[in-house]
Amino acid sequence: MTEKITNLDHMSANPLIPEVQEAMISAIRNDYGNPSSQHKLGDKAAEAMEKARESVARLINAPSAKDVVFTSGGTESINLAVKGIAWAKQDKGRHIVTSNIEHNAVLRSLRRLKMMDYKVSSVPVDGYGRVDPVDVAGAIKDDTVLVTIMHSNNEIGTIQPIQEIARITRERGVILHTDAVDSVGVVPVDVQTLGADLVSFASNTFYGPTGSGGLYVRRGTKIWPLLDGGVQEHNKRAGTENLIGIVGMGAAAEIAVRDMSARTAHVVKLKNKLLKELPHYIDEYIVNGHPEKSLPNLVSVSVKYIEGESVVLMLDDENIAVSTRSACAAGALQASHVLLSIGRDFADAQGTLVITLGEDNTEQDVTRFLAALKETVKTLREISPLYEKKAAQA
Amino acid sequence: MTEKITNLDHMSANPLIPEVQEAMISAIRNDYGNPSSQHKLGDKAAEAMEKARESVARLINAPSAKDVVFTSGGTESINLAVKGIAWAKQDKGRHIVTSNIEHNAVLRSLRRLKMMDYKVSSVPVDGYGRVDPVDVAGAIKDDTVLVTIMHSNNEIGTIQPIQEIARITRERGVILHTDAVDSVGVVPVDVQTLGADLVSFASNTFYGPTGSGGLYVRRGTKIWPLLDGGVQEHNKRAGTENLIGIVGMGAAAEIAVRDMSARTAHVVKLKNKLLKELPHYIDEYIVNGHPEKSLPNLVSVSVKYIEGESVVLMLDDENIAVSTRSACAAGALQASHVLLSIGRDFADAQGTLVITLGEDNTEQDVTRFLAALKETVKTLREISPLYEKKAAQA
Repeated sequence: MTEKITNLDHMSANPLIPEVQEAMISAIRNDYGNPSSQHKLGDKAAEAMEKARESVARLINAPSAKDVVFTSGGTESINLAVKGIAWAKQDKGRHIVTSNIEHNAVLRSLRRLKMMDYKVSSVPVDGYGRVDPVDVAGAIKDDTVLVTIMHSNNEIGTIQPIQEIARITRERGVILHTDAVDSVGVVPVDVQTLGADLVSFASNTFYGPTGSGGLYVRRGTKIWPLLDGGVQEHNKRAGTENLIGIVGMGAAAEIAVRDMSARTAHVVKLKNKLLKELPHYIDEYIVNGHPEKSLPNLVSVSVKYIEGESVVLMLDDENIAVSTRSACAAGALQASHVLLSIGRDFADAQGTLVITLGEDNTEQDVTRFLAALKETVKTLREISPLYEKKAAQA
Repeated sequence: MTEKITNLDHMSANPLIPEVQEAMISAIRNDYGNPSSQHKLGDKAAEAMEKARESVARLINAPSAKDVVFTSGGTESINLAVKGIAWAKQDKGRHIVTSNIEHNAVLRSLRRLKMMDYKVSSVPVDGYGRVDPVDVAGAIKDDTVLVTIMHSNNEIGTIQPIQEIARITRERGVILHTDAVDSVGVVPVDVQTLGADLVSFASNTFYGPTGSGGLYVRRGTKIWPLLDGGVQEHNKRAGTENLIGIVGMGAAAEIAVRDMSARTAHVVKLKNKLLKELPHYIDEYIVNGHPEKSLPNLVSVSVKYIEGESVVLMLDDENIAVSTRSACAAGALQASHVLLSIGRDFADAQGTLVITLGEDNTEQDVTRFLAALKETVKTLREISPLYEKKAAQA
């Protein structure tokens, strides 16, 4: 991490905190070997891996560490959950229920399944981006095998009523997956009270390395592996494990358990400061997402008459990192389906900035960002045909 | 790596060589961020990743670094290749040709595809474990969309005539995938002269970290991603990349290019010593695999009247690490399909040891192993009912 850069895009680039770095470096130096080996060379690897699994299980309160499947990250966890359940249940039915604001990993997994003769129903969200459990209940049909609704949204931060949805799916005998990639390690996620059958998460969300994630699979849930081969991960995910990454994720999970409330208090303070002071710096904007049921570290603002992409580039010149939306979609150019779903028009959607705060941020960072944003918005509006038109109308 | 252990199971537990350790540690300390980020925080990550991609491309002589898709390891590469082509070509046909001695990642991917209404033909191998290209040609049908034959076998080391097979598949307009997980970084694999459309490999084979691998995809080859989501890896593999692992794989690839001939000379010397001296230590054994077209670092020996599993455990007590077969299958208890395919009977298959040598091995390691093997075999045969029966018959 270059020190001079103010990181307000933690969702795409959380730093590796020192304890995680040290755990990974120690694993590299000790060079544990392959956890599946038949001899002593693998013993330490297996031990380190199971220790990490226990730590991760504690973070999500899994009944047993065995319920945690290690993957190569959030995207793989989601693909495994969605496709693995759809395939395993294909004889029971081929209908899946989802929401209009899911992450691309869910959306495109479902698009893929449609190419394999699955049907998908998508429920709407309200202006805050919340799903109504009643809509989910209404969308479930006799041949529905899976409901997949995200825990929190990566663009607007809104947290969904997963517990209520889980009550419905349980009653209807349908499997529930929740993409909790942006929640686990940020807000308390207790898989037992949550009631979802599958919960996806990623290490980088809680200051662990990229390329490591996991999927909670409720015991007894029949799922096809996405990766077939060896017998690793209780036959749910073949392939020699990324031990260094897993050790890093384990260390990060331990610290997340310890520090979550302090971290939350810290970022909420900064988020509140940002939202409170924002009107002193810019006008004509909309704050997206639910005012309370939302991630404590995320602020989404649609700024009128400008392009978010331009703001990102101009702030980048000032060494301030923010995002328009998740880095995964950075290569894609269409307007955010999430913002359109909550009622933003195309122009406002394009003018949206996502700020994700982290434990390394300070009040100065927020002030610095607000000042730079003010200048940037002013500059951009001066050259904006939309802003001119609006001024002329006034 | 605990110093006292003699590692003769490099295939399951290659050590991380110092240069690779340092590259990974430096990546951890510099904490590059997310290569897909929209701002500077991601620039260094993207740079480090593309440098690694260039190094890996050089190792396999890919026409362009863009032809290399990073994955979470050999198993994912194989699953992506086999399933990704089968799905992408489903409208053209649903028939796949393979061999009888493939790795579980291929076998079980194909078994999975059979559950999705694909058909599979499997060609036999000769006593050395070689596929006859004529058999492959004979197995290709009008609806064949994929031939998948391994480059080298992980249990007996035999190398397949992939170039000849590629000539056939090209002529017939069928995609060819070769699982080169145990070849790339050990023997020269030039994807351009080889002629396969897809080549799977894994970082750990050439002293890189576990959890990192790649798939060469010939330009223009239509393939469905296994992981849907973001636009990473040229839309062939979604998910934030395992940057630390990729940096390690890149460093390992660079060193493999530099050191491959020296490494080969070293392990061949040890392999020859082992094979030459073996008859002075034990009798009644069969050396498996092709005498020339074989991996330079692998020795497979079926020792009569004993169980390989017991030898592994007893040698482990002596701090010598060997394997019965690949660690991936260590949890499975059936006899090796590879050994049965080359004509070993069930008992001999169960009495098989796989020794894989590495650059850290010495002549003393070989001598130490042979002496310990002699004692172990003697002890085990004394309690073997098979050996007793044979003695009585003599």
